[in-house]
Amino acid sequence: VSSLGRSTPATSQAASSAPAEVGVAQDEARWIVGVDIGGTNLVVGLVPVDGGSPLALRKLPTRAEEGGEAVVARVVAMAREAIGETLSTHAASPSAVAGVGIGSPGPLNRNTGVVLTTPNLGWRDFPLRDLIAGALELPATLDNDANCATFGEWWMGAGRGESTVVGVTLGTGIGGGIVLDGELFHGVSDAAGEIGHMTINFAGRRCKCGNEGCLEAYASGPNIAARAVEGIHAGIPSLLVEMVDGELDRITAALVSEAAVRGDVHAHEVMQETGKLLGVGVASILNILNPGVVVVAGGVTRAGDHLFEPLRAEVRRRAFRSAVDACRIVPAALPETAGVIGAAGVFRRAVLGRR
Amino acid sequence: VSSLGRSTPATSQAASSAPAEVGVAQDEARWIVGVDIGGTNLVVGLVPVDGGSPLALRKLPTRAEEGGEAVVARVVAMAREAIGETLSTHAASPSAVAGVGIGSPGPLNRNTGVVLTTPNLGWRDFPLRDLIAGALELPATLDNDANCATFGEWWMGAGRGESTVVGVTLGTGIGGGIVLDGELFHGVSDAAGEIGHMTINFAGRRCKCGNEGCLEAYASGPNIAARAVEGIHAGIPSLLVEMVDGELDRITAALVSEAAVRGDVHAHEVMQETGKLLGVGVASILNILNPGVVVVAGGVTRAGDHLFEPLRAEVRRRAFRSAVDACRIVPAALPETAGVIGAAGVFRRAVLGRR
Repeated sequence: VSSLGRSTPATSQAASSAPAEVGVAQDEARWIVGVDIGGTNLVVGLVPVDGGSPLALRKLPTRAEEGGEAVVARVVAMAREAIGETLSTHAASPSAVAGVGIGSPGPLNRNTGVVLTTPNLGWRDFPLRDLIAGALELPATLDNDANCATFGEWWMGAGRGESTVVGVTLGTGIGGGIVLDGELFHGVSDAAGEIGHMTINFAGRRCKCGNEGCLEAYASGPNIAARAVEGIHAGIPSLLVEMVDGELDRITAALVSEAAVRGDVHAHEVMQETGKLLGVGVASILNILNPGVVVVAGGVTRAGDHLFEPLRAEVRRRAFRSAVDACRIVPAALPETAGVIGAAGVFRRAVLGRR
Repeated sequence: VSSLGRSTPATSQAASSAPAEVGVAQDEARWIVGVDIGGTNLVVGLVPVDGGSPLALRKLPTRAEEGGEAVVARVVAMAREAIGETLSTHAASPSAVAGVGIGSPGPLNRNTGVVLTTPNLGWRDFPLRDLIAGALELPATLDNDANCATFGEWWMGAGRGESTVVGVTLGTGIGGGIVLDGELFHGVSDAAGEIGHMTINFAGRRCKCGNEGCLEAYASGPNIAARAVEGIHAGIPSLLVEMVDGELDRITAALVSEAAVRGDVHAHEVMQETGKLLGVGVASILNILNPGVVVVAGGVTRAGDHLFEPLRAEVRRRAFRSAVDACRIVPAALPETAGVIGAAGVFRRAVLGRR
C-alpha cells in the first residue's frame, strides 16, 4: 500500500513531540474518524477535533466469523462513506480529516498497532491499525476498546472535568479503563485497567481467563443471564419466560435489565445481586485508586437504580469513607458513542498533541 | 510558635512552583530530615538531598500511649540530635538542613498537615506537621507512612529506575503505596493505595476496617501469627512452641517467619499460605496497574522464598501473562530506612521541586 509511509506508527510520545512528522496539517484538521470495533457491532463516525457529537455515525454487525480482512474492509467502507458524507455536507477538502482513532478488543500493542489476540474476534497478531490506515491513506492510532470508552467519557461524557476516572464496561466480559490527570493509564506493558479480572473471591467461580473468582465471572452479561436462568429452572416465576417465548437460552443480561424495569421481582433480585457483586469490585477500586468518578457502561445499566442502588450501597459499606465521599458512581453519559469519541480522542492526544 | 511562618503548608503544587516562598535556600541545602513514625518505632535521620544513606540515624520506641505531644517531643529531640551531629561532623551551617519530611500512619490531610485519625496511635485531628515544623523552625511535609516507604524504595531502593512501583508493607496492617512516573499517586482525596483493603473474598474474614474479606484480614502480621497459633492448638507440632517457652500469645509473624527459615514445617506451611493469599491480592494489582515492580516490605519478608515462592506462583496463576512478564516481585531493599528516605524524598519533591 503506497500510503503506509504516511501512517507511520503513532506512539503517543513520538507523535505528540513531533506531530508534523506524521504528515498531519494541524491547521486544517477538523475531524478525526473514530472506529469502535466490538464483538457484536462496528461503530464509525467523524468526531470534531475540538469535541462534539460524532457526525455521519454508522453502525453495522461485526460478523467476526467472516475473518479479520472482511471486518477491516467493512470498517474501511463505513469510514469512506462517513468521510464522504461529512466533507460534502461541509464543503470541506479531504485534508480536513486528520486521521483515524481505532478502539479494539485486546490485548494489543499500541506501538506496533497489532492486536495480539482477541478471544471474541478470533484474531491473532493482526496488524489492524496499519491495514485500516493503509486503505484509508490516513495516519491511525490503536488502543483497547474499554480504554477508548473510558477516555470518551472523560473527554465528553460522565467523567468530564475529573482528574481521575475509572470506566467499567459490562458486556460479554467486563472491561475497564483508567484515566489519570487526563491521560489514559496503560501500565508498563499496556495491560493496565483489567478491572474485570480482579479477584473478588479467591475460591470462587471459574473465569474465562483461567482464574477463579474474577469480578467478570460474577457480573458479566452472560453470567447475569445465567443466574436469571438458574432461578427460573429452580421454579421462580418471572416475566422473562414470556419475554423469550419460553426459550430460556435467549435470555440476555439486557432482557433481565428490561424485566427488572418492568417490575419483575426475580429480575430485580438478579440485578440487586449483580449490583452488590459489582460493588465489591468497585469498592476495591476506590480503596486503591481513589477516583473522582466511576463510570459504569453497558446494556445492563438500563436497569438504573435496580443496579446502581445496591452497587452504591455495597461500595459505601466496603470502601473508606474519604474515598466514598470523593467519588460519584454513575452510568455512562455516551452509551452508544463513547468508544468512537474516545478512539478519536486517543488519536487527537497522540498525533495532534492536544489535551 | 514564632517560626510557623517559615513552615507554611507545603503542598506539592504550591511549593514546587514557588520553592523560594517557603524560605529554603536551595543552593545550600545538603540534607533533609526524614521522620518515620510507626506504631512501634520512631526512626529519624538526615537524608542527603541528592540521595544516599541517611546520616545520624536514630530509632526509639514510639510509646504512643504517652500521647501525641510526647511523641512529637521525642521526634523533635531525635531530629535536633541528628542535625547537631551531622552539622558538626561536616562543619556545616544550620542552613544546610532544608527541612523535614514526615511519614505517619493516616488517613491524613497532606495540605493541612493534619493526621485525621490513626487507630494505632490514637490520634485525632492532630496537627503533626506544624508541631514538628514549629519546634524545629524548619519547613515540613507530611505524607502517609506506606506512601513514604514506597517512594523511598522508588528513589533509592528496589524500585529504582521503574516508572510504576507498587509497595506493599506487611505489618500490624497491610499498607500500600503507588508511584506512577516517579510521583506518588494519591487519588482525589489522598485515599489511594489502600492495597490492604481490597476485597479478596467477599464473604470472608472480618477486617478491622469493618469490611469483610480484605487482604489485610488474611495476611497482616497478627493474622499470620493467629493462623500459626490455631494450627498449634489443633495439635500440629512446631518449633514455635519452644521459641516462646510455651506462651503462644507471644508468637508473632516475625517469629513464624524465623521458624520457617529454621526448618519448621508448620511455620513453613503458614508462610506458604500467606504467600498464596498475598499473591491473590498482588495478582489483582498487576491486572489493574500493570506495574514494573511490586516491592514487599515488613518483617515477615525475612522468610524469603518461604513467602515469595508461593506468592509469585499465585500471581503467575492469576494475572495476565503480559502483566506478569513485565513485573518483578521483590523484597524491599531498604527494610529499615525506606520510610525515612521516602519521607525526605517527598519533601525534596514538594518543597525543593526536584525529581
